[in-house]
Amino acid sequence: MGGRDDAGGGNSAYGRKAFKRSRAHFQDRITADGRDGWPVEAGRYRLVVSRACPWASRALVSRRLLGLEDAVSPAVADPIQDDRSWRFTLDPDGRDPVLGIRYLSEAYDRRETDYPGGVSVPAVVDVPSGKLVTNDYQQITLDFATEWTALHREGAPDLYPEKLRDEIDAVMDDVYRDVNNGVYRSGFATGQDEYEAACTALFRRLESLEERLERQRYLVGDTITEADIRLFTTLVRFDPVYHGHFKCNRWKLTESRVLWGYARDLYQTPGFGDTVDFDHIKRHYYQVHSGVNPSGIVPLGPDLSGWTTPHHREELGGRPFGDGTPPGPVPPGEEIPATGRP
Amino acid sequence: MGGRDDAGGGNSAYGRKAFKRSRAHFQDRITADGRDGWPVEAGRYRLVVSRACPWASRALVSRRLLGLEDAVSPAVADPIQDDRSWRFTLDPDGRDPVLGIRYLSEAYDRRETDYPGGVSVPAVVDVPSGKLVTNDYQQITLDFATEWTALHREGAPDLYPEKLRDEIDAVMDDVYRDVNNGVYRSGFATGQDEYEAACTALFRRLESLEERLERQRYLVGDTITEADIRLFTTLVRFDPVYHGHFKCNRWKLTESRVLWGYARDLYQTPGFGDTVDFDHIKRHYYQVHSGVNPSGIVPLGPDLSGWTTPHHREELGGRPFGDGTPPGPVPPGEEIPATGRP
Repeated sequence: MGGRDDAGGGNSAYGRKAFKRSRAHFQDRITADGRDGWPVEAGRYRLVVSRACPWASRALVSRRLLGLEDAVSPAVADPIQDDRSWRFTLDPDGRDPVLGIRYLSEAYDRRETDYPGGVSVPAVVDVPSGKLVTNDYQQITLDFATEWTALHREGAPDLYPEKLRDEIDAVMDDVYRDVNNGVYRSGFATGQDEYEAACTALFRRLESLEERLERQRYLVGDTITEADIRLFTTLVRFDPVYHGHFKCNRWKLTESRVLWGYARDLYQTPGFGDTVDFDHIKRHYYQVHSGVNPSGIVPLGPDLSGWTTPHHREELGGRPFGDGTPPGPVPPGEEIPATGRP
Repeated sequence: MGGRDDAGGGNSAYGRKAFKRSRAHFQDRITADGRDGWPVEAGRYRLVVSRACPWASRALVSRRLLGLEDAVSPAVADPIQDDRSWRFTLDPDGRDPVLGIRYLSEAYDRRETDYPGGVSVPAVVDVPSGKLVTNDYQQITLDFATEWTALHREGAPDLYPEKLRDEIDAVMDDVYRDVNNGVYRSGFATGQDEYEAACTALFRRLESLEERLERQRYLVGDTITEADIRLFTTLVRFDPVYHGHFKCNRWKLTESRVLWGYARDLYQTPGFGDTVDFDHIKRHYYQVHSGVNPSGIVPLGPDLSGWTTPHHREELGGRPFGDGTPPGPVPPGEEIPATGRP
């Protein structure tokens, strides 16, 4: 537990015990009223992500949908961690140009001297002090939706509508346990029984989600919510990594008419697919998890060309952004290179 | 090279050098005229196989199609080898009841003292002397088809018709290099370039086979030949093992309309599917190749229920057995248990 080469969002221990994801250690919140000492403020915080990581990618999608691009800038880590964990080797001189650090762990250390835990993304760092504010992957996006409202773009959707929160929370709980985290429990299982329990629960949940989404465009209500963001970041990784690398192989996403339609619908919605780098995703999992894939070889497949094909989900109705509008174009410099696109 | 834990049909070395399959070391032939000292004779030889192994499984299909069940009996090895290689731990007291040996290597040793090479299936053993006759996986089935004719059943098909041999040989050469052995070169590659070369050639070949089989029911002529047997034993393992375990993951067999139809057609033809044990197949690859799959966990997927669904390939015409007839039922005691069936 708690090594420095974590796979994001928590600890990916795969020793003798069953895989257990840690709760985030730093749970300060950035709020409108600043009650934890961290008020919402444009330009003050840096969002550190890996485009490989499903937990961090939630924040990238949320930021785009809400139009927080100018308010909070992203630091994109190299998809391949080294023994000091996430690093900024994609940037000139290997340093994040805003924070001036080479490793995300430096922001952790500034926050808590000799912090012994794992380093994970997403992480929000206070630019003036260089200190980590939060790595709470379950809370960051909820706060983007509900606390950062003063900085939302015009036409931003309500991703966590008050009157639907109970239902959204219930769906997200099930999806977290069986899907978001279920793929990790399947892939990092060290025994056959542990694997089978996780994999069985995963596909049972996916099949119940298929029923839910058969006649309904989005998970809750008729608009995109936080629940869709969280399911999407796992589904988009399903065939490229979880199916083979994590042995979640009862069927491929492309073989599920409903979920494949649902995932493509979101992928093709501005703010979702334009945050996805399939190259980062594949290289991270296959090269970093040497215990699962000793050769470090990254598979050529799967064929990704289907992601941009018609999904026909608009026939189900739904209003993707509710009374709002789609986000504008991706900010310059944040475009996904051709290597990462289908 | 030449370890005792080979994956059948040759040597599965995956050290620093590119994967290279050895030629069979023992190439004596059992012929009608007995010129190598081994005449065709009913009841004299034991066919040692693993139902996990694609090379050995060719011989099981061939034996069924030709009606050689009474002439040559099978010894089915445990799909999991130990450090002494293939063993008869599925039999009472862990001994093959006909040969009386615990390890196939004992028949190798009787043939050649201190034989230093690998132990592989298929292997044909002379029952009276207990000596290995041949482990020549490329020749055994051709001899079944052309030398064992006096013992063929009534209505046995001609699996290697004289006038089509050039074409059959050419197809089998391509299929061997890029498909039968290509999946191993992909899965046992130790470097990215080596893997990519094998995987690219594999899918290029599969795509050219799709074109060939789009309007033609079988690979050569309008009947089942040796070429179909050899392609089948790789295709039936494709989604259960090669797709994930060997990273042959551009697409699944089930995603290829033509090849999935072709493979199901053969699977549902008497003599093909009734030799296939998916449980042996999956456990062998995932549990034996600890260098590829250190956890030894065997995936629950894929869903195999599609294998028995309609394929509609009969609309292409073709005469599966030419002027002959399908084989009769599986001999008692050789039925695939429920654990191995879709």
